[in-house]
Amino acid sequence: MNKSDVDYRLYLVTDRETLKGRDLCQSIEHAILGGVTLVQLREKSVSTREFLELALAVKGITTRHGIPLIINDRLDIALAIDADGLHIGQDDLPMPLARKLFGPDKIIGVSAGTLEESLLAEKQGADYLGVGAMVATPTKPEAKIVTFDELKQIKKSVHIPVVAIGGIHEWNARETMSSGIDGISVVSAILAQDDIKSAAQQLLKVIC
Amino acid sequence: MNKSDVDYRLYLVTDRETLKGRDLCQSIEHAILGGVTLVQLREKSVSTREFLELALAVKGITTRHGIPLIINDRLDIALAIDADGLHIGQDDLPMPLARKLFGPDKIIGVSAGTLEESLLAEKQGADYLGVGAMVATPTKPEAKIVTFDELKQIKKSVHIPVVAIGGIHEWNARETMSSGIDGISVVSAILAQDDIKSAAQQLLKVIC
Repeated sequence: MNKSDVDYRLYLVTDRETLKGRDLCQSIEHAILGGVTLVQLREKSVSTREFLELALAVKGITTRHGIPLIINDRLDIALAIDADGLHIGQDDLPMPLARKLFGPDKIIGVSAGTLEESLLAEKQGADYLGVGAMVATPTKPEAKIVTFDELKQIKKSVHIPVVAIGGIHEWNARETMSSGIDGISVVSAILAQDDIKSAAQQLLKVIC
Repeated sequence: MNKSDVDYRLYLVTDRETLKGRDLCQSIEHAILGGVTLVQLREKSVSTREFLELALAVKGITTRHGIPLIINDRLDIALAIDADGLHIGQDDLPMPLARKLFGPDKIIGVSAGTLEESLLAEKQGADYLGVGAMVATPTKPEAKIVTFDELKQIKKSVHIPVVAIGGIHEWNARETMSSGIDGISVVSAILAQDDIKSAAQQLLKVIC
């Protein structure tokens, strides 16, 4: 996978709690069949071994569908499964260190909540930005809100792809995309829905 | 640091809760001044960034005193600070993968609770074994107990250094060492004591 070819339009970030007991791998596959273009595996409270096994299983699915798999936060897991990418937040490894350890050809995305964080991440070699939260969201209640104008300003100020995240659903997806950004990143707008595949299809239709 | 020169006699494993609010770095330094020969930094509920910053601070201390620093579980942190070693439990990265990603010159230790786990870890290239728990311990209440005879059997069956861990205090340290093992690994026997330096000195006196 050449990292300049990545399609950022519909970026799924996982959260097992959102699934209410449904199988994560199966749900990811349904989402991909519905049109998800990129998957980020995010696990915060499992052992390293469990995370590794889950990541290997998910990689089997994403590889089969030709979709890049990004690991949230944990460079050890990303290295262990030779993931396509790593996503780091402001509480994770610093960008320059992540790049040094993961290598120049891997995708590294950075969460940014301000123009300053966005410009710094780009300067430090991030491949894309996850900007948000756009709306207050139950999966990240502590996140601060980025306005539509701030999002537009960030997109105009950087040369790397920008994906908006945090509280994006069918009702605000098109408006968010009208800021000129490259894609939307969602959790519950896909994974909390009864029909995951059709939720992804519907979102893709709204944004394209 | 050549990994064959490591002195495993008195191996400190950190646990911030045991410190009851005292500073971790200062406590580690006191323990080293008391005679600790090896330090393992173990953190389970901090962000990657906090773990990294703590690990860098601890590395400054261990390097100044010429003591190896081992990181528990997190290969990303071990790589990021170029730690001397990594300690993995049965719920962490598998040994062969850890070796491949961390390199042949680094110390990798494995937690083992049985002879089978010990033999497998040695076969897979572990540099030392942390065998236990020897006594039920409040820091790992779920751990199963290894008897003195099992410990002796493990030590006789492997060629790599064996350190006993889990519930070792001044009262049972000498007896545990009489199994022929290379060292004892302690948490609260040092970090929960009022005078950390003198607790380490006392333990070292008991086992040497």
